[in-house]
Amino acid sequence: MAETEARVRFGIIGCANIARKLARAINLAPNSVLHAIGSRSIEKAKRFVTVNGLDPQRVKIYGSYDQVVEDPSVDAVYMPLPTSLHVHWAVMAARNGKHVLLEKPTALDVGELDRIVGACESNGVQFMDGSMWLHHPRTAKMKDMFFDSKLLGDVNYIYSTSTTSPSPEFFESDIRVKGNLDALGALGDLGWYCLGAVLWAKSYQLPTVVTALPDVTKNSDGVIISCSASIQYKEPAAAGATTNAIIHCSFLSDTSMDLAMTGSGGSLNLDDFIIPHRESSASFEFTKGAKFVDLHIGWNVKPEKVVVNCELPQEALMVKEFARLVAGIRTSVLLPDRKWPEISRKTQMLVDAVKKSVDLGCEPVYL
Amino acid sequence: MAETEARVRFGIIGCANIARKLARAINLAPNSVLHAIGSRSIEKAKRFVTVNGLDPQRVKIYGSYDQVVEDPSVDAVYMPLPTSLHVHWAVMAARNGKHVLLEKPTALDVGELDRIVGACESNGVQFMDGSMWLHHPRTAKMKDMFFDSKLLGDVNYIYSTSTTSPSPEFFESDIRVKGNLDALGALGDLGWYCLGAVLWAKSYQLPTVVTALPDVTKNSDGVIISCSASIQYKEPAAAGATTNAIIHCSFLSDTSMDLAMTGSGGSLNLDDFIIPHRESSASFEFTKGAKFVDLHIGWNVKPEKVVVNCELPQEALMVKEFARLVAGIRTSVLLPDRKWPEISRKTQMLVDAVKKSVDLGCEPVYL
Repeated sequence: MAETEARVRFGIIGCANIARKLARAINLAPNSVLHAIGSRSIEKAKRFVTVNGLDPQRVKIYGSYDQVVEDPSVDAVYMPLPTSLHVHWAVMAARNGKHVLLEKPTALDVGELDRIVGACESNGVQFMDGSMWLHHPRTAKMKDMFFDSKLLGDVNYIYSTSTTSPSPEFFESDIRVKGNLDALGALGDLGWYCLGAVLWAKSYQLPTVVTALPDVTKNSDGVIISCSASIQYKEPAAAGATTNAIIHCSFLSDTSMDLAMTGSGGSLNLDDFIIPHRESSASFEFTKGAKFVDLHIGWNVKPEKVVVNCELPQEALMVKEFARLVAGIRTSVLLPDRKWPEISRKTQMLVDAVKKSVDLGCEPVYL
Repeated sequence: MAETEARVRFGIIGCANIARKLARAINLAPNSVLHAIGSRSIEKAKRFVTVNGLDPQRVKIYGSYDQVVEDPSVDAVYMPLPTSLHVHWAVMAARNGKHVLLEKPTALDVGELDRIVGACESNGVQFMDGSMWLHHPRTAKMKDMFFDSKLLGDVNYIYSTSTTSPSPEFFESDIRVKGNLDALGALGDLGWYCLGAVLWAKSYQLPTVVTALPDVTKNSDGVIISCSASIQYKEPAAAGATTNAIIHCSFLSDTSMDLAMTGSGGSLNLDDFIIPHRESSASFEFTKGAKFVDLHIGWNVKPEKVVVNCELPQEALMVKEFARLVAGIRTSVLLPDRKWPEISRKTQMLVDAVKKSVDLGCEPVYL
């Protein structure tokens, strides 16, 4: 079998900006290839191929989403669509036997996501959401150092932000602030990462209670454009310390993506956890056993920096992992990996809980 | 007048650990000198002089606090006492014409602090609390870059932590977790800095509402050992964006002291704002106009590091500023500077508001 034939053939539906990044990633990953692009307008799809320097001889260009999900030569579909359209097109793709790589937030609520995941399960296809940072080797390195090796002791506090300050036009016209398209606003687009980071840090244990903070800002459409939340893990006393987390997401502040964790024995800080400053390498800082020196005139340690190199961009690593699973399923070596839909489902549950708490005027929501 | 005679003569009452740091600072500052040390036990006061390498010929050693505040040769008193004793001894010192440098938290509540500040005002003496970081040149540099020069745009989000993980004995015996000594616990000892940082970042404008988060942890004495709070500035719409802040203070996590601010145009981060890692210099990082490069595969800027050198430790700079004011008042050149008690009072008001919100089960407290 020729090399390209073995590659997982991706179709993309929708020409959103993020699709350009994924088109590149799909062709960078060693086990996948961009096979088709579909837009509601054939002109837009053609322009996408041209603008991104794709070979029109090797990429099918469709003027509808249906044609992509019905094309028998397409193995997997990547969907950078407005959230409100996810359930329709993801279910459709799964029913057509396509593996589904779905942009986040995965759905408007966990009920919709369950329909998507259910369709994927009953059709034997892989599901994964587009949380790229989970695939960066830095993320694995942090997990190894801090959780598996307990370098921080028991983590009892987690803090995460995702903010970006878009242009005034964004607030006029972007799908992410339109109630009928991405009704979850900043919470879905940015808070998704923060809540995912909390779950990641807790090895995907669900918290006990989620409470939105009173600092919510909504636009005239009622869509959240800035909010924060307190997330509590109230383990039984016997199990030791509890963990508390605070997340903050906003379209009102300049770009930030901080992740901090402190435990009884140390702390971790990074300021670019979602998209690293540079593709080739990424870093984090930690302190272990930080105390003040005699007279409290300084610290006994300074933060140590750990640099992790990255051979492929994180989005290409995500595609590579997804394609690895798809290839395994196609050759009956693997069953769909339930880890990925489970991660998505728990993240969506927390998004839903924050949304519910906001709607209830910051009442606590128990999970 | 000989140089040492011109120096402001400090008495210290109480031999707490922090007193050692201040004894050094008082002798490092060019305009002050440690003149007397008082403890409830003369032996403890003698030991303090020996352990800290002080010259017993030049430091009066007293076996009571009264003797220090009544000594006519003492100009100013530094008080590292349990918070519950502040009002008694600070008022006593002021009535004896001593200038008062008071360790934080200044009092158990703003009512007590008003008695202290009132006694200082009516006796014409200077008041200042022991928030050393306000006197570091880094703090002035940040104010200059970010507020006076609006490098971050309008700051709409502030985040600050102060955590430390003391020994098990601390939880047994330290005054800071004893309801009858430092009833404000981690909120008074650590949260004081976080709340002070929020006020500093807002040029000492008071917020509209303060809400404790549900992640409060108390010890068996009912003293707060960990808590967080949301602080909201709800300016009238015409005045532009609102500001929200989140603070977190805890005796349960390893040492951290993060301060982050984000505005419409940039963000600032430092991880040692209360006590810099090193005495000789300190740094902060900022990004301005951070955007993603094309395809969102990295940032257009990396955080820039600014290093600020420090000729004297921040606590010596605090003493120097305090002694400058005292010298001016002694020679009738200056009146007591009301800026410092105002900063303390607003910080205490926020401490009180968080405490009240905790006591009300996280209800919002309006200021």
